[in-house]
Amino acid sequence: MTKALVFGHKSPDTDTITAAIAYSHLKNEIGFETEAVRLGEINGETAYALEQFNAEAPRLIDKVAGETDRVILVDHNERQQSVDDLDEVKVIEVIDHHRIANFETSDPIYFRAEPVGCTATILLKLYKEHGVEIPKNIAGLMLSAIISDSLLFKSPTCTEEDVKAAKELEKIAGVNAEEYGLEMLKAGADLSGKTAEELISLDAKVFEMGGHHVKIAQVNAVDPQDILNLQEEIEKAAETAIEEEKLALFAVVVTDILNSNSAIIVKGSHVSLAEKAFKVTFINHTALLEGVVSRKKQIVPVLTEAFNEEA
Amino acid sequence: MTKALVFGHKSPDTDTITAAIAYSHLKNEIGFETEAVRLGEINGETAYALEQFNAEAPRLIDKVAGETDRVILVDHNERQQSVDDLDEVKVIEVIDHHRIANFETSDPIYFRAEPVGCTATILLKLYKEHGVEIPKNIAGLMLSAIISDSLLFKSPTCTEEDVKAAKELEKIAGVNAEEYGLEMLKAGADLSGKTAEELISLDAKVFEMGGHHVKIAQVNAVDPQDILNLQEEIEKAAETAIEEEKLALFAVVVTDILNSNSAIIVKGSHVSLAEKAFKVTFINHTALLEGVVSRKKQIVPVLTEAFNEEA
Repeated sequence: MTKALVFGHKSPDTDTITAAIAYSHLKNEIGFETEAVRLGEINGETAYALEQFNAEAPRLIDKVAGETDRVILVDHNERQQSVDDLDEVKVIEVIDHHRIANFETSDPIYFRAEPVGCTATILLKLYKEHGVEIPKNIAGLMLSAIISDSLLFKSPTCTEEDVKAAKELEKIAGVNAEEYGLEMLKAGADLSGKTAEELISLDAKVFEMGGHHVKIAQVNAVDPQDILNLQEEIEKAAETAIEEEKLALFAVVVTDILNSNSAIIVKGSHVSLAEKAFKVTFINHTALLEGVVSRKKQIVPVLTEAFNEEA
Repeated sequence: MTKALVFGHKSPDTDTITAAIAYSHLKNEIGFETEAVRLGEINGETAYALEQFNAEAPRLIDKVAGETDRVILVDHNERQQSVDDLDEVKVIEVIDHHRIANFETSDPIYFRAEPVGCTATILLKLYKEHGVEIPKNIAGLMLSAIISDSLLFKSPTCTEEDVKAAKELEKIAGVNAEEYGLEMLKAGADLSGKTAEELISLDAKVFEMGGHHVKIAQVNAVDPQDILNLQEEIEKAAETAIEEEKLALFAVVVTDILNSNSAIIVKGSHVSLAEKAFKVTFINHTALLEGVVSRKKQIVPVLTEAFNEEA
């Protein structure tokens, strides 16, 4: 039997990369041969975490069918966020904490999704359920994922379970979560020298909503104005993506990680639907969303509902 | 907050009914108010199990939105197998052991599917994870579910985990699984007096395959010939269903529970696709499928593949 490949979503973030590493390790420990791989470039925050905990980035791939017939998805389940040739292989497991959509199997599989803030929180449970000890460096990576997804426990996606998991992982990893976390987030928010095109590709996901394709990019920043200064270029890059990827909407969410709110730049044919969804009026294609920091919890559900109502 | 309703699929079988009872009890024990309900009539086998373990049948419903805004699905996830007004409420959890299809949420939820033979096997894990003791009568119901879904551990869907779970539940329930199980299966296989229409509705599920609707009814029998004697009436009833429900295919699987094989009666516009899928030639709309006893594992995947290839 070929080795199963374990990977997270395109435009990988810290949770996706570390979940692939951590889950692949667990599977190997229980006698099931796997390899962690990734579908895109490592971002600055993840690079910082990997370096801190002496871990290699998983191997970069763009297709899977040439080397395996079985894959395990972590941190995502929606087909359009996954590897392009997903249809040609069998998904044998999914470990995720997102909404479930555009996912279908012909056979029963292991599918474990929980409404927690981070895949790492579920993985910690799985390590315990299998009685496998978490190596110190993997605990550090998993802690990094929780800090990243929860913006140091400040995001509304952060649950009690995530906080508890982070405390456990902090002990195993031997770091101070608050101190280490702030440094890691800052490393990720250092976007100097990035082009507008790079900025909107770093953490971008496509969602199907009421039959339309909607792309939502999120950029975390310590000083959002640095990003907003590039608005004109961002809009142009978004327009290109809209045409090339046939998007009904492209929303760029610039999140102020210190003040916990987001500026949103929206382009596409369905801008008015976004205004209705967020109950705002866009001025020059942009608006401030007070208290909004989570794409998963505060952006995707309201937009999905608005698109479904219209459909 | 309104009470969440917990239910399994339409045409309920023993696993669906007992999973609703067992999971609702667990949720209530951990402080989350729920009620087990059902979407159809109790079959003979389930009635036997409920009586043996002094349990009430869950309340019969046909709609949910009038009384709650939140539901928990057990033993199914496909929309067309669920309550008709599912779109009007929020699915907050799914506990299942089937393929995943036609299921979508706008928010992250708790979704626990495992490739085991029975929902009860997953529920036993959940009781342990929450540290809740299983009452004797609920253990008996869960054991009944495993016996039913695994045809007394003989179905290819039956995993080591199911056998292990059954052994644990057997002790708690205080019965002999083999003896009790055979009596229960026989009670379920007593189909005397049933009309053809009733026979094909007892345990029928609709699946979406390559854009088509395919209905597969399964009838367990100790003496399959009793059922096959009604072939003409069964075909007529199937034709009516095909027209009314716009089905591409209606397969009636008559399973010989003692000899572990099935006769299949197939009607509809896509009969030749079924011949290709099962590598058989139908004579008078029927064929014997040697060693086939599981709809989930031996019928749905091959038919799905054939329909997808054609699509």
